[in-house]
Amino acid sequence: MSTVYNFNAGPSTLPKEVMESAQSEFLNYNNLGYSIMEASHRSPEFQNVIDTAEGNIRKLLTISDNYSVLFLQGGASTQFSMIPMNFLGEGQSADYVQTGAWSEKAIKEAQRCRSVNISASSKESNYTCIPELDTWNPNPDSVYTHITSNNTIFGTQFHQFPACSNDAPLIADMSSDILSRKLNVNDFGMIYAGAQKNLGPGGVTLVILNKNLLARIPENLPSMLDYNTHIKSGSLYNTPPTFAIYMIMLTTNWIISNGGIDGIEQLNDKKAGVLYDLIDSDDFFSCPVKQGSRSKMNVCFRLPSENLETEFIKSAGEKGMVGLKGHRSVGGVRASIYNAMPTEGVRFLADFMSEFKKLHS
Amino acid sequence: MSTVYNFNAGPSTLPKEVMESAQSEFLNYNNLGYSIMEASHRSPEFQNVIDTAEGNIRKLLTISDNYSVLFLQGGASTQFSMIPMNFLGEGQSADYVQTGAWSEKAIKEAQRCRSVNISASSKESNYTCIPELDTWNPNPDSVYTHITSNNTIFGTQFHQFPACSNDAPLIADMSSDILSRKLNVNDFGMIYAGAQKNLGPGGVTLVILNKNLLARIPENLPSMLDYNTHIKSGSLYNTPPTFAIYMIMLTTNWIISNGGIDGIEQLNDKKAGVLYDLIDSDDFFSCPVKQGSRSKMNVCFRLPSENLETEFIKSAGEKGMVGLKGHRSVGGVRASIYNAMPTEGVRFLADFMSEFKKLHS
Repeated sequence: MSTVYNFNAGPSTLPKEVMESAQSEFLNYNNLGYSIMEASHRSPEFQNVIDTAEGNIRKLLTISDNYSVLFLQGGASTQFSMIPMNFLGEGQSADYVQTGAWSEKAIKEAQRCRSVNISASSKESNYTCIPELDTWNPNPDSVYTHITSNNTIFGTQFHQFPACSNDAPLIADMSSDILSRKLNVNDFGMIYAGAQKNLGPGGVTLVILNKNLLARIPENLPSMLDYNTHIKSGSLYNTPPTFAIYMIMLTTNWIISNGGIDGIEQLNDKKAGVLYDLIDSDDFFSCPVKQGSRSKMNVCFRLPSENLETEFIKSAGEKGMVGLKGHRSVGGVRASIYNAMPTEGVRFLADFMSEFKKLHS
Repeated sequence: MSTVYNFNAGPSTLPKEVMESAQSEFLNYNNLGYSIMEASHRSPEFQNVIDTAEGNIRKLLTISDNYSVLFLQGGASTQFSMIPMNFLGEGQSADYVQTGAWSEKAIKEAQRCRSVNISASSKESNYTCIPELDTWNPNPDSVYTHITSNNTIFGTQFHQFPACSNDAPLIADMSSDILSRKLNVNDFGMIYAGAQKNLGPGGVTLVILNKNLLARIPENLPSMLDYNTHIKSGSLYNTPPTFAIYMIMLTTNWIISNGGIDGIEQLNDKKAGVLYDLIDSDDFFSCPVKQGSRSKMNVCFRLPSENLETEFIKSAGEKGMVGLKGHRSVGGVRASIYNAMPTEGVRFLADFMSEFKKLHS
């Protein structure tokens, strides 16, 4: 079988070495005689897996003891509700920055129970940029500010973050760019991320939470929706998605052995650069996203016509490049090039783009 | 490596054929060139997986179109809150039957927001039985009755279910005995089950829900906690635990090709019979659970002394039988013999028990 490059937006490609390693010990983990998937979540073997995964993430992002690191279920979509339930009291308001479909969903869930101030929005420009920080209209009384650091559908990404205070910290949905670049975790009250782009398979959500937020949690929340429950139990209140957490352990081991965050960031810069340079080189390809707001994870671009886009995607598929269709709400082409997409995959796509341009321009 | 038999209470052993099959296509599912774990949840390949899993479960339990079949996240523990949030209105009350640690948790979560009538309890007998149906004290105004069909910790199981009405249906947590025996789904308003005992790995929860309950769901619940969200989206509102659902597909394929529910029930009867017959044959082993309430999934038993129990568990472990320690709250020995535990594993344990008895009586 020839190589397939999987450019899906998520779940997406995982590192080849990680997949091979998981396959090789799939029936017999660490000579237990059974799979890690079949091990009790209360066993020393699984405790070691979850401890290693947490330790890797703490090491990669230099996370201090002021923060808890949790592995939860329910995806970012469950966090959209848990955040206001835990941290936004009655009569209080929070700032939300609207930069695409996912931030809209976060806003909608917060609005169900609480007051929301949309402090900045790029909706009028069809989400083709991240609003400049100096144009935001924060509510001085807001108790946190929520952003979506990378927007998979529109191909935009925050390249700088607003300065926030302890009283009104920054909370970021980093589902599509967690562990893809250096980050000062101390600038955030909370970071959360569904695993299925840069961390592992679908079904587990990483939460990095400053413990000074815990004082805000009201009494009597449903146990599973109360961050305290998961902190007190080390993410083992009930049966966690053990295999997904094991995959995060393997993936973060892989990042560490490939140069850590510095190494992965350099690689991601290079990969995105190859595509954006080609797109900007003339008028055949075009990127709708403003310079300065472009995502290094999801490179969205257009061709001169929708017919050519359809042909491009079909022809790429025949050559083993799958998942390139843009989201149905925006059309065009989208190449999702998360950590695990190898440079060769990006070069293969770039070569194909050049050939296609020659044929059709 | 010699065979290991894994008697853990969950996550626990999965069918050998299922594990081998998942391993063999781990890197390349259906000639896609990548893993099903790396496929988009919006892809036709994954749609086929989730449709097959649902179809298998519908077929195995003869589930009519009046019921939705969902794959959710968060475990039974999240259902403990979702059930009262969705189905128990303000000023209403529900009956809960208290038969162990899990039903206690379900009761606690319902009590956070609503009124609960404990209509029957075996707490005073240390949960060593299921309360006889004719001793229950139902509240005639209750809008549903909640039970835990099998209690992993105490080794008890419902062998008959109360007759309930459409207005006040029966809701059952079947996390530890789903798909282990024949069942008339029409007798239930809702059945739910964490997957990690009889269905697949941890991280996915099966919900079988009578659509006539949907009229009760209040407005403005958090999207992820509203059953309507998941019904409308076919369990694909956000990224589901795709690999765990794939494992459910394989496991239910395996049940179908091994005689379906009839076949699996016969096997489970036989397996449990081997152990209980041995336990009851004289006074060396004893089962604290009342006849008629004994679980065919979790066989709990005692030895003449705690020292002998410790030695039994240690010695069994050396022979490749792991996970036999009783839950810390009850002590003793527990053999969890879910669907995937082969008859040979049970016979191997029974032979060891006989030998151990000879040595020590």
